[in-house]
Amino acid sequence: MSAFELVKTDGAARRGRLATTHGLVETPAFMPVGTRGSVKGLTPDDLTGIGAQILLANTYHLSLRPGAELIAEMGGLHRFMAWDGPILTDSGGFQVYSLASMRKITEEGARFRSHLDGSEQFLTPEIAIEVQQALGADIIHPLDECLAHPASRVETERSLALTLRWALRAKAAHAKGAGGQALFGIVQGGSYEELRRRGVEETCAIGFDGYAIGGLAVGEPKPLMLDLVELTALLLPKDQPRYLMGVGTPPDLVEAVARGVDLFDCVLPTRNARNGQAFTSAGTLTIKQTRYARDPAPLDEACGCATCRRFSRAYLRHLFTVGELLAPRLLTLHNLHFYLTLMAGMREAILSGAFPAFRARFLAGYAVSSEGGLPETLQDTEA
Amino acid sequence: MSAFELVKTDGAARRGRLATTHGLVETPAFMPVGTRGSVKGLTPDDLTGIGAQILLANTYHLSLRPGAELIAEMGGLHRFMAWDGPILTDSGGFQVYSLASMRKITEEGARFRSHLDGSEQFLTPEIAIEVQQALGADIIHPLDECLAHPASRVETERSLALTLRWALRAKAAHAKGAGGQALFGIVQGGSYEELRRRGVEETCAIGFDGYAIGGLAVGEPKPLMLDLVELTALLLPKDQPRYLMGVGTPPDLVEAVARGVDLFDCVLPTRNARNGQAFTSAGTLTIKQTRYARDPAPLDEACGCATCRRFSRAYLRHLFTVGELLAPRLLTLHNLHFYLTLMAGMREAILSGAFPAFRARFLAGYAVSSEGGLPETLQDTEA
Repeated sequence: MSAFELVKTDGAARRGRLATTHGLVETPAFMPVGTRGSVKGLTPDDLTGIGAQILLANTYHLSLRPGAELIAEMGGLHRFMAWDGPILTDSGGFQVYSLASMRKITEEGARFRSHLDGSEQFLTPEIAIEVQQALGADIIHPLDECLAHPASRVETERSLALTLRWALRAKAAHAKGAGGQALFGIVQGGSYEELRRRGVEETCAIGFDGYAIGGLAVGEPKPLMLDLVELTALLLPKDQPRYLMGVGTPPDLVEAVARGVDLFDCVLPTRNARNGQAFTSAGTLTIKQTRYARDPAPLDEACGCATCRRFSRAYLRHLFTVGELLAPRLLTLHNLHFYLTLMAGMREAILSGAFPAFRARFLAGYAVSSEGGLPETLQDTEA
Repeated sequence: MSAFELVKTDGAARRGRLATTHGLVETPAFMPVGTRGSVKGLTPDDLTGIGAQILLANTYHLSLRPGAELIAEMGGLHRFMAWDGPILTDSGGFQVYSLASMRKITEEGARFRSHLDGSEQFLTPEIAIEVQQALGADIIHPLDECLAHPASRVETERSLALTLRWALRAKAAHAKGAGGQALFGIVQGGSYEELRRRGVEETCAIGFDGYAIGGLAVGEPKPLMLDLVELTALLLPKDQPRYLMGVGTPPDLVEAVARGVDLFDCVLPTRNARNGQAFTSAGTLTIKQTRYARDPAPLDEACGCATCRRFSRAYLRHLFTVGELLAPRLLTLHNLHFYLTLMAGMREAILSGAFPAFRARFLAGYAVSSEGGLPETLQDTEA
């Protein structure tokens, strides 16, 4: 069960409040990714300390190791990972698409081989719900089919229809559960405006507690992605939360909030931290570069995180150069703090009717000195 | 400069207080090892939180990367690693012995190749002091020669004489420094009682701010090690601190405190944590074992650390199984907490005249269910 309250709007941007079994989520919100039941290198206390409200965990990875049944026996995912706040799980559809080999999609479900040991796995809409019920997240999702970009209209239409039939089965399976878990629908439809419209209409006709926008950030050009987000968000019910799956860079978040999105998850802040890339108010910074070897400044002068309050770029570069365990931890903390502070800034701006100015200022500052470097848009898990 | 105050004795066990430029150290004390300027996976705040008073860093590793000159430019090691408490550095002699290849010892010093890139390095007693002055630790050491066990009497006598001549040169070099750094002497002498006696006499004749017992835990039988510790400690001046280098297991610490040792360092709690071995009040525990897969208990029911308060063995085993970054961090925190709590217990016991009972109770409880497993005594650095 979740209930969404729309607190304030500023243009299409929305300031909301999502009630879950494990507490409230002030939106727009970013969910740090804890693929295998851990946000890499950080404890729940670290996450609370930087303002994380809700985490995402991956059904596919957890069901392979340690297994949903073991987690249920240990009291569910919240207790297992010692996170008392809300958790959202995906259905595993995207991981089947992106990680698993030899997958075969039929009407019944998805048959594939584990990326770990090659063992045969079978996922149906019913099994995906059952596994997520065992994990016990606050927000769960139906199994869907993801397509790579580009896909033909015919192929996209076929896939959308399958996702919609699976969504019906997921809803029926969810209805048999104990309650307490919100079920979001996933809107597919590829890059085709008409199919996205159909995706919204038919998913909403089934009726869910919230709506995820899926199948974006899989290789399509960014302007197209934002157009599709805008189109989809405009069609979705105003009184329910909207979740853009797997997106994105800091500017992506700002642009998607401007188009009416409430929830986000992405591996960029955590994965790029492990590769030495920091997000800062002036753009990205690759700490391994020689130019930082004798730089006494923090990663971001404007940042108040524990990493920036304590450590210099010179020290962080040293930790990366010698391969110290502390290096990815400190950069992950900083990057997530940056993302979560950005979301808090947007919430504040919407509330005070200053979102357009916030958006313009952020994008101008961020663009100035961005180094580029690593690819910034990856819809993927942390494994 | 350091000043040692002997607060209380209980048999040979000593409760003391060591004053350094960066604050007091209540002894007996254990120094977590921060080989390359970081105690693996932990922040200074983590270390303060579990009661760490003083850290050890390795001159050899830091002088190769990032270089002592760079650290000096960044304001010294304390500022570089953001640790405001006392720091002790070794001279690099043990690393030259254990890590460096193609080493050649002459009267002048040690010529060897870097374990990183094979580049030729040259360390003299004067250079070792100079490098440690650049790092700026509170307690520094003269270059010494380490011998493997067993070594012949003739070889040990030759080596001891060289170490003593180097100690004289180190003292002269230290005297030219700015002050503020205590210089400890290192007592060598191998497994030969007579040579250990000579080591103590001649090192004390030179005169240092404290005395390290070196060249132990390098392969000799444990009873012999404890006998040599006892012999050496008895001969050392009562009003100065005694540091047993690179030792040891929890029982080793208790036995050495019982013989009058004040300071310890060892990589066991940190290195073994990364291999999944936890130290507990009932002995060691290898968390990767299948038997812990569904174990809801903490690592140690008697432990109050943040890891044991929050996480089950089942979760920790899962983190190790899938290779999560959080795994070594959580076990390192627990193991160091265990070591530091053990030291605090010994300090308390000595103060109240109950050390013999503490020692007997600890050793009885610890021995019962110790699994064995990993080798427990390693005098080595963390690299």
